[in-house]
Formats: sequence, structure tokens, C-alpha cells
Amino acid sequence: MPHVNIPATLPPGVPGLMQYRPETGRPLSSLAEVLLRTPNTLSAADRELIAAHVSALNECRFCTNTHTEVSAQQHPEGRALIDKVMADADSAPVTPKLKALLAIATAVQHSGRDVTEDLVTAARGHGATDTEIHDAVLIAAAFCMFNRYCDGLAAVTPQNPAAYVGMAQQIIKNGYSTCAG
Amino acid sequence: MPHVNIPATLPPGVPGLMQYRPETGRPLSSLAEVLLRTPNTLSAADRELIAAHVSALNECRFCTNTHTEVSAQQHPEGRALIDKVMADADSAPVTPKLKALLAIATAVQHSGRDVTEDLVTAARGHGATDTEIHDAVLIAAAFCMFNRYCDGLAAVTPQNPAAYVGMAQQIIKNGYSTCAG
Repeated sequence: MPHVNIPATLPPGVPGLMQYRPETGRPLSSLAEVLLRTPNTLSAADRELIAAHVSALNECRFCTNTHTEVSAQQHPEGRALIDKVMADADSAPVTPKLKALLAIATAVQHSGRDVTEDLVTAARGHGATDTEIHDAVLIAAAFCMFNRYCDGLAAVTPQNPAAYVGMAQQIIKNGYSTCAG
Repeated sequence: MPHVNIPATLPPGVPGLMQYRPETGRPLSSLAEVLLRTPNTLSAADRELIAAHVSALNECRFCTNTHTEVSAQQHPEGRALIDKVMADADSAPVTPKLKALLAIATAVQHSGRDVTEDLVTAARGHGATDTEIHDAVLIAAAFCMFNRYCDGLAAVTPQNPAAYVGMAQQIIKNGYSTCAG
């Protein structure tokens, strides 16, 4: 049961929190929309994968399941590849650039001060632009917020995997901006 | 030197990052404005203090100095009290309610899953409302993002304490929404 009195009519997880307090829900959903969906040289599937990876490190079940599913539904290689990354990002068959950005995200999850010049130089060596490095850092940082927001208020977290399939379809169709109601 | 090429004409710290990438800067600055400045049953000084406390736990010098200063300039008891909270929140002479909300923020900084029913019950017992508990969790979560964003990109962090005095005066006068340029 959530730590605050969130009406049971609201959706589970972070969207329910956004609708509970729309004054903060609006900028939070706008941030997710820009970071994960607005056209970018990083695909939406790759950005969702960074979000899912950080959420798994933070052990936030709602966000891990949601963003794994949103990534898998949008990735040309589908769930099989996403599952490999989620199991072990270092050995997964993704581009060296994405692997380097995932390594930066892993550092950010622990502490911003863990992002070394070496990690950034490696990403740049594999073709990452300044904007891509910026966005990888901010996606990782933002999910350190969303994960803590979700679990810190004990938001409702569906147990049934099918629930995440439907939520992901809605996100892909309608975007995050509609999450805040 | 920052990890990405942020023009030296931009301000230091998080405001410089917001102006570097205004697409994300706008929702980030709106979030800070609502969380820390929009009228609320928690004073702006107390909310800034929660932000400063979490930033200190995350060892983010820019955010700690900035929000300590913004809190001190707005708190009726001034810097002497704020310094006591920053040195040891448990023993500082603040209300039991604020102490309980700071304890929730301490838990969130480590992990959202560390926010126990006991911590929430204690805050409620000292008069905290659902909105205040929600906002304390989200302020703490948001600063786990802002701190990682700032340090993860190695944003410019002034060494001179006087710089933070001037920045705090600007924030109190103009708000966070202007930070994104």
C-alpha cells in the first residue's frame, strides 16, 4: 500500500504519482518525454534501455519492467536483445557506443563523481557526441530520481507481467506527457 | 573542466547545464520551482534545507553550497541554524516534523526502498500531511538527480563562497524558472 493516500482509481507506479500531484507531475512527464521520446540521434529504444538498466541497478521493479518493455517493443531486434543487455550489459551484442554510454550510466547510478574522463573519452572514441553523453548522464540521473520517487512512496507495482505490456503500448502510442493526466 | 563542451559564457553548475540543453532545462527548472518555491505548508527555507541535506549526503559541492545558502538567506533564524542542521540533522534544534521529514530524505538518498512505514508514521505523528511527505520524498529524489547531473558532467563549481551568496540572492529574487535561460 502506498505511503500516502493515492486514490485506487489512479494508475499504478509513477503515472499514478504524477496524477496525484499534477503540479510536479507535469514537469516530470515533460522531462521523460524529452529525454526518452523526442527525436534524437540515440534511438528511443536505446534511451529506454539506459533507463531500464539504471532502474535495475536501483532495484526498482516498476520502472525496470516498464522501460524494459518499452525498449523491447521499439527495438528492431526485440526482447531477446534487450534481455541480454539487462542480464549483462558488458557482454551483450550492442554497439560499442551504446556499451560505453551504458557504462557511463552505471557510474552515474552510483555517484555523479564516478563519471571519469576515461569513461567519457571511451564513449567519444566510439562516436558518442556531446549531446549523447549529456543525455546518457541525465537519463541515468533522472532514473535515480524516478526510481526513488516510485519506491520511496511505495507506489502500486503490478505483479502481472502482462500489465507492463499494455502500459508500454500506451506509452509508445501516447507518450509520457499524457501520464500526468 | 566539464565533460562536454559547455560555453564558458554560461553560468556555473546546474543552471549552466540547463542553458546548454534548454529542451531538458525547461522541465528541470520548472520542477525545482514547484518543489522549492511554489507556496506550500512547508516553508521555502525548510524545503531548501531538505535539498541541501541530500546534496551533502551525495557530496555534491555545487548543490550543497547553493541550497544551504538559499535556505539560510530565507530562514528566520539564518545561517546559524542551517549550519547546525547541516552538521547533524538529528541533534539540530528544528521541529520534530522537519526532523522526521529529513529522516525520510536521508532514507530516500540511499534508496527509495529504505523509506519504511515507521519513518512515515513518525512524520505523520509529528503533523506531516500526505502532501508534505510526498514532497519530502520527491525533493530528496530530485536532488539525487540534480547532484548526479551536476557532478556526472563535471559542471563548473565555484570555489569562492561569495559566488554562492550572489547566486542564492538571484534565485530568491527571480526563481528557478529563469535558470534555464
